[in-house]
Amino acid sequence: MYSAGDVRVEDVPDPKILQPTDALVRITRSCICGSDLWPYKSMEALEGGEGRRMGHEFIGVVEDVGSDVATVAKGDVVVAPFVYSDGTCDFCHEGLHTSCVNGGFWGTPDVDGGQGEATRVPLADGTLVKLPVPEDDALMASLLTLSDVFATGHHAAISARVGPGTTVAVVGDGAVGLCGVLAAKRLGAEQIIILGRHEDRTNLALEFGATDVVAERGKPAVERVKELTGGQGVHSVLECVGYEESFGTALRIARPGGAVGRVGVPQFEAMKGAVPTFLNNVTVSGGIAPARAYIEELLPDVLEGRFEPGKVFDRTIGMDDVPAGYQAMEDREAIKVLIEP
Amino acid sequence: MYSAGDVRVEDVPDPKILQPTDALVRITRSCICGSDLWPYKSMEALEGGEGRRMGHEFIGVVEDVGSDVATVAKGDVVVAPFVYSDGTCDFCHEGLHTSCVNGGFWGTPDVDGGQGEATRVPLADGTLVKLPVPEDDALMASLLTLSDVFATGHHAAISARVGPGTTVAVVGDGAVGLCGVLAAKRLGAEQIIILGRHEDRTNLALEFGATDVVAERGKPAVERVKELTGGQGVHSVLECVGYEESFGTALRIARPGGAVGRVGVPQFEAMKGAVPTFLNNVTVSGGIAPARAYIEELLPDVLEGRFEPGKVFDRTIGMDDVPAGYQAMEDREAIKVLIEP
Repeated sequence: MYSAGDVRVEDVPDPKILQPTDALVRITRSCICGSDLWPYKSMEALEGGEGRRMGHEFIGVVEDVGSDVATVAKGDVVVAPFVYSDGTCDFCHEGLHTSCVNGGFWGTPDVDGGQGEATRVPLADGTLVKLPVPEDDALMASLLTLSDVFATGHHAAISARVGPGTTVAVVGDGAVGLCGVLAAKRLGAEQIIILGRHEDRTNLALEFGATDVVAERGKPAVERVKELTGGQGVHSVLECVGYEESFGTALRIARPGGAVGRVGVPQFEAMKGAVPTFLNNVTVSGGIAPARAYIEELLPDVLEGRFEPGKVFDRTIGMDDVPAGYQAMEDREAIKVLIEP
Repeated sequence: MYSAGDVRVEDVPDPKILQPTDALVRITRSCICGSDLWPYKSMEALEGGEGRRMGHEFIGVVEDVGSDVATVAKGDVVVAPFVYSDGTCDFCHEGLHTSCVNGGFWGTPDVDGGQGEATRVPLADGTLVKLPVPEDDALMASLLTLSDVFATGHHAAISARVGPGTTVAVVGDGAVGLCGVLAAKRLGAEQIIILGRHEDRTNLALEFGATDVVAERGKPAVERVKELTGGQGVHSVLECVGYEESFGTALRIARPGGAVGRVGVPQFEAMKGAVPTFLNNVTVSGGIAPARAYIEELLPDVLEGRFEPGKVFDRTIGMDDVPAGYQAMEDREAIKVLIEP
């Protein structure tokens, strides 16, 4: 990406093993993330005119490994979480791999992005999870969601303390919100209200387990959620957008004692509502999802077909169509775009 | 209280039983709360010139009960939490008595304040807890803290997820902060850093179990806490002040994945730091403490003398000296003032 709206597919040098802990992965599936749309809307051209490598969700086949890599080998099919991590530091041991002291993001200097044909994977042992399937398995779309979108929906649900019998609202009907619905269903929520106004998306939410759709926004949305919950609001709110308005709605529909799990990257600096959330003991939790921590837990349900988060992909494209894929997501013509390089 | 700085002791009509669920309580101990200092600093005179009844922490002796009251009787020594509640609604059952659908605050119309000789107690069965001690028991000061200040410190600690082996920072060396230190110690914290700069108070914090004192504020305080915690920050922050600056400090000294339990009544509307807390997965929890939910849990440790939160009272006065008691707390000459009516 060179600047807002300017995505180009270009030839770059092949990645190479640089560290003994690296793996080289040929990417077989990747995708475009809702968070990629933030720079697609607003990125300014970099000094020097270089582009920024994009993409942070991928599945691939290991082509080579450094001398210290022990858990994956050439030929393995692997999924990568959207942050790489060493798997050995305090934070990784606690399941917060996004705060790994040696970790980092894809698409940074010397680390390619996921929207490409291949990438160097730093800290391969800590980062990659081997998948017990062939590279063209029918489950690929759902497995790819473990990289970010299903793991992020799950993180929202965990952060919002979803559990058996809870009432849940999901703010946002993008791919993360839809995966939040699925995660809430998986965790045993009793009522799941999706707040969104794109009917194709809210229909998928209903398929994923939502019990109610609220198409309103702002104050009418708050009133509608209150009506649906006996006037109380919900135990758990999954904030899957990141705008100040959607976050404010999330705070207002939480039940006293409830929790907001936020996974939408905040496009604002200050969280209004310090006093009402204090009086109602509403907890604000969540953040960037430690996808790596959740992959093993979510994997069996995906492998055995009990949950199909891959349904959020409603368009599949080749590499040349990636720029059009961004535009389709930006225009809400596609929920989430799968790339087969 | 008639307005900022204007506290008067006046004769008012005796309270009466108004509802069958009421009790009449003769107050034997009450106190002045740090939160009473907010109106003491800023209250504007009410239209009509009336005063506002003050005080929400008390122990007393039941003088009479309504016909529906079953759990307390004339002659019982009782402690009241700082919010009355029915004990039967959804929120009370969940331990969030501050959100009781029938509950309310002391010092509102028809409900006297605790800084007086007697009060009507609505919803006596849900509100009052009988104490197995005589009315002049030596433990009275510590028992009185169950009404608010120790329960509030405990709520901060619970909300901040303090547990065995955790590292804790307590922002604020007022009575609540000091009780937060004691609560964190009680819950098994390994390291307890008190942020405060009044040496008499931080000395009591050390006696209560604090391991380190940070007298700095703002950025130097953040740096000092990081130094004391191997660069990481603490698992649990107890925000016991309520200013925008102290809350900001609380967010910045939390470790990635950590939690802030806030019990200082917020004197600001928007919580800055939406993005850094998101990147670090810092949880913001807490609020007005459901003291009623904690009394039974904390009572044995107080009755058996294992914890002495009553040490936060460093001045005892009679009713006539209540105005001077406010000023002493405002001037930081007293940590917390006990009233023997």
